[in-house]
Amino acid sequence: MSSILIKESLIGGATQDLLIVDNRIDKIGTDLLPIDEETIILDGRDKAVVPGLCNGHTHCAMTLFRGYGDDLPLQTWLEDYIWPVEAHMTEEDIYVGALLGCVEMIQSGTTCFLDMYTAPEATARAVLETGIRANLSYTLFDRGDAERAQLDRDNCYRYEQLFAKLPERICWSVGPHAIYTVSGDQLHFAKEFAEEHEIPIHLHLSETEREVKDCIAEHGTTPVRYLEQIDALSPRCIMAHSLWLDDEELDILARHGCTLVHNPASNMKLASGGRFRYEEMKERGIPVAIGTDGCSSSNDLDMYIAMRMASLLGKVWRYDPTAVCAPDIYRSATEVGYAMLGLKGGRIEEGYLADLCLIDLKAPSMVPCHNLTSNLVYAGSSTIVSTTIVDGAILMRDREIVGMERIIEMARRTAHDLLHRKG
Amino acid sequence: MSSILIKESLIGGATQDLLIVDNRIDKIGTDLLPIDEETIILDGRDKAVVPGLCNGHTHCAMTLFRGYGDDLPLQTWLEDYIWPVEAHMTEEDIYVGALLGCVEMIQSGTTCFLDMYTAPEATARAVLETGIRANLSYTLFDRGDAERAQLDRDNCYRYEQLFAKLPERICWSVGPHAIYTVSGDQLHFAKEFAEEHEIPIHLHLSETEREVKDCIAEHGTTPVRYLEQIDALSPRCIMAHSLWLDDEELDILARHGCTLVHNPASNMKLASGGRFRYEEMKERGIPVAIGTDGCSSSNDLDMYIAMRMASLLGKVWRYDPTAVCAPDIYRSATEVGYAMLGLKGGRIEEGYLADLCLIDLKAPSMVPCHNLTSNLVYAGSSTIVSTTIVDGAILMRDREIVGMERIIEMARRTAHDLLHRKG
Repeated sequence: MSSILIKESLIGGATQDLLIVDNRIDKIGTDLLPIDEETIILDGRDKAVVPGLCNGHTHCAMTLFRGYGDDLPLQTWLEDYIWPVEAHMTEEDIYVGALLGCVEMIQSGTTCFLDMYTAPEATARAVLETGIRANLSYTLFDRGDAERAQLDRDNCYRYEQLFAKLPERICWSVGPHAIYTVSGDQLHFAKEFAEEHEIPIHLHLSETEREVKDCIAEHGTTPVRYLEQIDALSPRCIMAHSLWLDDEELDILARHGCTLVHNPASNMKLASGGRFRYEEMKERGIPVAIGTDGCSSSNDLDMYIAMRMASLLGKVWRYDPTAVCAPDIYRSATEVGYAMLGLKGGRIEEGYLADLCLIDLKAPSMVPCHNLTSNLVYAGSSTIVSTTIVDGAILMRDREIVGMERIIEMARRTAHDLLHRKG
Repeated sequence: MSSILIKESLIGGATQDLLIVDNRIDKIGTDLLPIDEETIILDGRDKAVVPGLCNGHTHCAMTLFRGYGDDLPLQTWLEDYIWPVEAHMTEEDIYVGALLGCVEMIQSGTTCFLDMYTAPEATARAVLETGIRANLSYTLFDRGDAERAQLDRDNCYRYEQLFAKLPERICWSVGPHAIYTVSGDQLHFAKEFAEEHEIPIHLHLSETEREVKDCIAEHGTTPVRYLEQIDALSPRCIMAHSLWLDDEELDILARHGCTLVHNPASNMKLASGGRFRYEEMKERGIPVAIGTDGCSSSNDLDMYIAMRMASLLGKVWRYDPTAVCAPDIYRSATEVGYAMLGLKGGRIEEGYLADLCLIDLKAPSMVPCHNLTSNLVYAGSSTIVSTTIVDGAILMRDREIVGMERIIEMARRTAHDLLHRKG
């Protein structure tokens, strides 16, 4: 039985101790004692214990493309930069890219992420090694081709077997890429499969105006209505981006219990749209999580900055400084993210998963501390994260991640080789 | 003669050495040698030498209000939170708040800032002590009161004497607060005074739609046209915010050689407006700098995040991913900022001021390095800054700032006391 005792830290507004036993928060209180001689004791003075963040939508291995083809028109970027390189990617490349992504997330206070990429087993290796928690989606992508559709279905059963053997902190989900790349039958299959195997469904939804227009042209209606018509919606659905939705579509999503994931930096950088309707979703009780998206479209995986972007962007287009307030966004980036993955995490409370961070209250941007949540959302970045614990294990301590140097070297070499291989 | 030699660093795309003599970049090349036994030698391997950033508009001492009264309507925030506390601020409070702001900027790679606050002599003490470079504006604020206007004019002559005695890295400027708080006569005086004493003029301009509407109601025309009519425009003018400008106003500003400062985070958080017309300014050759604004409205002073916000926001409202590209924004945050203050800085070039940073190329968010500028603008934050040099002096070395602990303690105590004093 492993245990960690954090002494005299700021927890819920007061100086308290926190005891972790195995992978859970066991006790919060004053004058707590180690449970045995093996208990690791952390000095929590001048630190705050906060929940780790859940990156609700990313493509972890795409760290290898960071800064490759920025400031370009969307089609040029995809056709001349990303796709030709991705065509040469091996599972080893994905593993190394994911390793880099995992250490970047650990360093910036993210303890869990939802991923979508090819070869999730390669990303799983990186998750296993680095100790972070993740749900990895297998991407369905048939473009109406029956053979590919069947292959994708077979793979679903294969991944079900494969992930069952991995530790509990590594889960998987079925990831129909988008309505324009996956057939209606397959979208319905995803729903049925997810229901049967009790896993989430993860897809891109209404990311661009063009997606909506194309959907109307092809199916005679908008994406959400289309998904309802083909019986593809369920409470297991996690929809990334979800920018271009009308009121009735929000009602439909609310009725089906879907979760949406806001990726502000990506939406801004790719100029997909800046009017994510956070307040309208909140009114309807639609859970909203926060994500960074992959490093091709948002360049880093810092969820503190993603929270800040979400909040600031949500205020400005409404001309309302009270909208999308810090406590709401903080809940989105922690508890809501964990809940959508079926995990009891994202809160500093007894019985919850021990996925948490120590924040350095002496970092200049955290001083003074009139309001911790406000400081975290509006002034946070990886700089403030001192220690990261996932599943009851210390992954970063006082900014040190064991093995990071080696991962950085591998990632540099792999990224360089990958671009050369492309020719 | 002091000197620093940075060995084997990434400079302009190649591994080179850089020699600083006194406060200038003396030489860039390979196999450079120390000039004497006193030369400090820095290991530049796995680092990039980059220009320090210029924070083009801030209110440094307002760090004390970080997180105090967020997510509130503008008037509630000002009337119930900020103004009652500011009324109790002493010069000592301003000095301490500015100390905190200076270390925060040094830690996040800012080497120079343009400030506007009451009692600039208090901020000057903090600048003097911490070693950063600054131009501090004395705020004109007469609200049409002739007595206050005269007092402000007298103070201008007083500050001229006072700042003449300080080291060259601490300059001052005249800071008419805004067109709605400063009389037309005083705005014209500012122009004449600045011309005579060869200093900048620093004002808030067209920050909100209301400012424009009020100006039309009071003066029968828009802010920029009004400023031209009263002969208050000059190449010395540095206008912060400048959100609500029509094409002809941009033409007028271009004709008078004014510089504009974009403060994206503040404009978003206060919901002043998100459509800063960067590309239209560029077309007209209007220099644009980047600022954070004070911590009341933007919560931190991280110019890396300000660059990212400026670029992403500039793309999204245009639906154009190629707009407001990384190299442009980077120039805005470095060279343009320095130039508007009359300083030869913001570039890594022989003869330029030795205001520069070492960037950690092994920070996860800087790996791989396909494009350094892109990494800095889209994935930068204080985390990546390893060493900061201003005016040829090392202010932070390997993330260590001498005396920071004491400043953090003072700032905590002062912020707490200040709120208590308010009652």
